[in-house]
Parts: sequence; structure tokens; C-alpha cells
Amino acid sequence: MLDLTQDVRALTAAIVDIESVSGAEKALADEIERALAALPHLELDRSGETVVARTSLGRGERVLIAGHLDTVPVAANLPSRVEGDLLYGCGTSDMKAGVAVALKLAATVPVPNRDITFLFYDCEEIEAERNGLTRVSRDHPGWLAADFAVLMEPTDGVIEGGCQGTLRAEILVTGKRAHSARSWFGVNAIHGIEPVLARLNAYRARRPVVDGLEYHEGLNAVRVEGGVAGNVIPDACVVTVNYRFAPDLSVEEAQTHVREVFDGYEVRFVDAAPAARPGLTHPVAAAFAAAVGGVPRAKLGWTDVARFSTLGVPAVNYGPGDPNLAHQQGEYVSLSKIVESERAMLDWLTT
Amino acid sequence: MLDLTQDVRALTAAIVDIESVSGAEKALADEIERALAALPHLELDRSGETVVARTSLGRGERVLIAGHLDTVPVAANLPSRVEGDLLYGCGTSDMKAGVAVALKLAATVPVPNRDITFLFYDCEEIEAERNGLTRVSRDHPGWLAADFAVLMEPTDGVIEGGCQGTLRAEILVTGKRAHSARSWFGVNAIHGIEPVLARLNAYRARRPVVDGLEYHEGLNAVRVEGGVAGNVIPDACVVTVNYRFAPDLSVEEAQTHVREVFDGYEVRFVDAAPAARPGLTHPVAAAFAAAVGGVPRAKLGWTDVARFSTLGVPAVNYGPGDPNLAHQQGEYVSLSKIVESERAMLDWLTT
Repeated sequence: MLDLTQDVRALTAAIVDIESVSGAEKALADEIERALAALPHLELDRSGETVVARTSLGRGERVLIAGHLDTVPVAANLPSRVEGDLLYGCGTSDMKAGVAVALKLAATVPVPNRDITFLFYDCEEIEAERNGLTRVSRDHPGWLAADFAVLMEPTDGVIEGGCQGTLRAEILVTGKRAHSARSWFGVNAIHGIEPVLARLNAYRARRPVVDGLEYHEGLNAVRVEGGVAGNVIPDACVVTVNYRFAPDLSVEEAQTHVREVFDGYEVRFVDAAPAARPGLTHPVAAAFAAAVGGVPRAKLGWTDVARFSTLGVPAVNYGPGDPNLAHQQGEYVSLSKIVESERAMLDWLTT
Repeated sequence: MLDLTQDVRALTAAIVDIESVSGAEKALADEIERALAALPHLELDRSGETVVARTSLGRGERVLIAGHLDTVPVAANLPSRVEGDLLYGCGTSDMKAGVAVALKLAATVPVPNRDITFLFYDCEEIEAERNGLTRVSRDHPGWLAADFAVLMEPTDGVIEGGCQGTLRAEILVTGKRAHSARSWFGVNAIHGIEPVLARLNAYRARRPVVDGLEYHEGLNAVRVEGGVAGNVIPDACVVTVNYRFAPDLSVEEAQTHVREVFDGYEVRFVDAAPAARPGLTHPVAAAFAAAVGGVPRAKLGWTDVARFSTLGVPAVNYGPGDPNLAHQQGEYVSLSKIVESERAMLDWLTT
């Protein structure tokens, strides 16, 4: 059985050595459920390979601490090995070090100053519909109720607040086909995207400050496609744009903005994921920031914190791993950073 | 055996009824070879399913009359049928009516005023490397020696002189990849094609007069492709342009022009086919134009006449079929136009 009394560094190594590639998290989820079941101060729930444990002390505030159990495919980088301060192996940074910190807190803080919900979930590294957090937020939204959430993804020990939203839209330009030897009988849709690109080139991205963090938007073409045959004036061309928007905009507001930018063109929205506010102005978050130290920064990419935001729970990313090492064959984590992270979290939840 | 003494209209129907989809011309080529072999004034050659027959009277001029034997796939439009003046069926317009006129001339003009080379070739409707004319011009260029050539493709009985050349080039724009959530670390190659499209939109196509015929050039994007993934700033975008150029330019001159238009960009030439001069200023061509009547027009699309031009033989398209009906299920040809065409050609070659 997983020994939660061991040092957080050894615990990280132990968890890393239980392989848990996306879709194959059962062994690790079982070990964690068994270890947590031995702790009388926690109530347990399980959905698939997602394990939820919570204290119920009737505190005025509840915080949620979450981590995903899965890793990208193993790349001849297991079992883990230590070299000096570094623990090498698949999932060390992303994000079993964070999971180990959460498990240590679960085991060693039976009477926290705030009620805590621990969430260990599956299938974060793959398609959203298999994501354990998606499933739990649909089937058991009550499990996720909290005033603030910390997702222990690798951030190098710095708070990354909220996340930007993302949407993709197709800008459609039409024309009229003709044989290219008599091109004046046609209307060239590829030539017709020039003004669309001109608007993108002239676009000034916003850098709004939300809850004290500066975000940085972007509106970019990520695909362009047009052409019928080598001898045909094309009658259609599609520019796919990706808008990354700050958490002061809803998906609907972001869509309205894109429609305005491409006023006069047919705009078709392909997909969208909402932004998440960092919520660092909330007292429980402020206490967290004080305990962790450093200068919180805005999270520009989209992460699972947005799923909490959708449920009305402000959320941040914070973890000991190095985000630049995620998904790399040579992935490692600094052992001293894991210890630092555990100490900061303990501080937040006990003093 | 194919009866070359029958009326040109009946002969057209007989040829139409011998199926000869590209690659399966053998039956028709055999029939034609056998019929021509019975004519003592003609020397015969054969290469694959291409049949060549020529007079050798030692005339001061030699003209070449050519037609392809193949058709696009049959579309429940065989056998042929007559409705009033119209003969319906696969290949009627494109171009068995022209082949029938040529065969009638071969059979009925044993002593023409100019030496004649008749050429019936295979695989015109498919990829160039299988084209019988490509093969003969490579293996037996001497067979194609002539002062002037008439390709009896459907032109509605009007001379279409020469043809425009065509080349395709890829204009490459590069950038730098980045995650689209931090787009300012990248350089967007799709945004980078805006000036390429601006040059295309500003382009003024030439309309030069060559050998008395007005051509009309065109420079157009026919394909655009860029994009890595929905969350990546793309590092490459390719605009494929098609330049249709008048016969006063060689392929090399046309390439130089395209390089100049896209000065500053990487230009990669994909393919090219030369233009063909109409050669209507040559006396034998002038006599042909007088016999046929009407106002010759420039051929804007690329056709096999360019293969003659490459060999130094000026060439025109002229045939009784209707070019707008080519490749259509409801294809037909006007029987009276076939007769007209035969009469004009006879006139040219006998008076």
C-alpha cells in the first residue's frame, strides 16, 4: 500500500513508479483510494479512476486541491531515478510531484484551518470528453463545490492565475469558379482574403488587468485553405482564426468581438472554451498567495482551471514541477521544490 | 472494316460507335490503320495506338492534320443516335467529328496541293506522360515535321490560333512557430502572405497581340495552404499561382516575370508548358484561314498545339465540334458543321 507517512520526495518517486498513462490510471487510483480510506478524517468518493476526499469540519471556507493522475506515454523513462536534487521520470513534473504534495497534505493535516476537498482525476492529457474533471463536473458537480481551487500543475512554484479562454472561428470568403485560362470570368476567393489578413495584421491585442494580473490576448490565423485545382479560379477560401481572450470576457463576448473584427464576412465558430478568472482578490486566495510568496502571473494558455471557473470556483495553477519539461523524455522535477511546495501549502492550511 | 467512302456524317457515327476511352483505343486505331493501309497514296507508321499516314508528293509545303482517338469515360451515351441535325454520343464533339473529317480527306484527296501528314493519336484526355503526341514527339519527331498543323479539336468551326502557355509556381512565406496563447513569440506565416495577395490583386494582365491575334494573360492564386494545428502560430504558408502567358513569351521569360512580380519571396516553379504561336502570318496558314473563313481568335487555354510549336511547327485548333459540350454526358455535334468543315478543308487542300 502507498505509504503516505514517507517523505514527500520518496512519495513522489513511489507514485511516479506506478505507471499511469492516460486511460490506464486504475492501479494508481486504487492505491490512492486505499491509502486515503485509512484516514478517518476524510470522506471518500470515486467516479471511474477519479478519487475525491474531503474534510467536513464545518469551516467557513472550503478549498479544493486537484491533480491529474495520468501521464503522457512512457518513453523509456521509468522507473524513476534520482540524480542530486533531481528526480527523473515520466510524470515527475507533470504532475506527480503535485499529486504527492496533495497526498501529504491529506495525510498530515487532519484538522485544517479551511475545509479541503482533494481531487485526483484521470485522463487530463487526452481528449476533453474523457477527462475525469469533465465527467465529475457533469455527474457530481457538488463534489467540486469550493471557494477557491488550486490545480497543482507544474508552474515552477509560482502562482499562475486563472487562464485565458480560446475560440476558433472560420472566416469564409467566396468567389466564382472559372478556368484559370479565362480568369476574368471568375472571382478569386484566395485573392479575396487579402483584407481579412490586413485586419489580422492591423489587430492590436488587449493586455487587460483582471483581478490584479495582466493577461495578453491574441488573434491569429492558424489555418488557411483554398483551391480547387491547378487550373481553376477558386470559389472559396477559409481562414481559421484562434482568439485567446482574457478572463474579463465571456465566450459570448469573445464571439461578438471576433464578429466585429471580421464585420462584413461570414464567420463560423468552430469551438470555444471559457476563460477563468484568477480570483486572487478573494481572502482565501490572498492568504494562499501570501503563503506561497512570489509574484503571481497570469496564465495565458487554457487549462482545466477553466472548468472550476465555469462552476463559479476561482482557480489557480500552482505546482512544484517545471512546465517546460512536461511531456519531454528527459522530464524531471527538483526535489527541493517539492519540499518547498509542501511547506507553503501546509503554512496556508494550518496557520 | 471502316468504310471511308461513306458520307462524313455516317463515318463520324461509325467512329463514335467504336468505344475508345483513354487507354483503350486499340480497336479504333486498328480499324483506322487497316482502312488507311488500303489507300496506296499514303505511307503508314504506327507507335502504340497512334497511327500516322502521309503523302509524299514532293510538294513545297507539308501540313499536318491531327486528332486524338480517345474520349472521356462513356456515360451511358453510346451507341450514338441522330436527332435532326444533331449526332449524340460520347466523343461526338470531342473529337471524333474532327477525326472523321481527317479520315475523309485521307481517303478522298490522293493528290493534294500540299503534302499532308495525318496523325491519329491516343491518350489526350489523361496525364501528359501517356499522351501519344508526347511519345511520338520524343521517339519519332520526324513524323511531325510540317510547315503548319491543324489540330481538329472542337472550336465550333472557328480557327483558334496557337495557345497560351501555363506555369505554376509556389510562393513560400515563412515564419516562426509559437503556441497561439503566446503568439508574440512567433511570426505568423499566414499573416505574412498579405503582401503576396496584394500584388496579385494589383496585377494588371497583359493583352498582347501576337501574329494578329489578341491574347489575354492571367496571374492567379489557385491554392493556398498554411497551418500546423489549431493552437500553433504557423511557420509556413504557400500560395500556388498559375500564370497563363501569351505566345510572345517563352517559359523562361514567363518564369522571369513571375520572379519579378514576387521579388523578395522564395519562388518555386512546379510545372510549365510552353505557349504556341498561331503562325497565321505564314502563307499556308493564311490560305487555310481564307478557306475556313470567319475571324480567327486566340486560344487562351493550353492545348496540344503547343507540342507542335515546341517542334517549330505553328499550329491552330479548328474543328466542327462544340467546345462547350466536351466531356458532357449530353455531348453532341451538329452534322451540318461536320460537312462544312470537310468542305473547307477540301477547299484548302485542293484549290
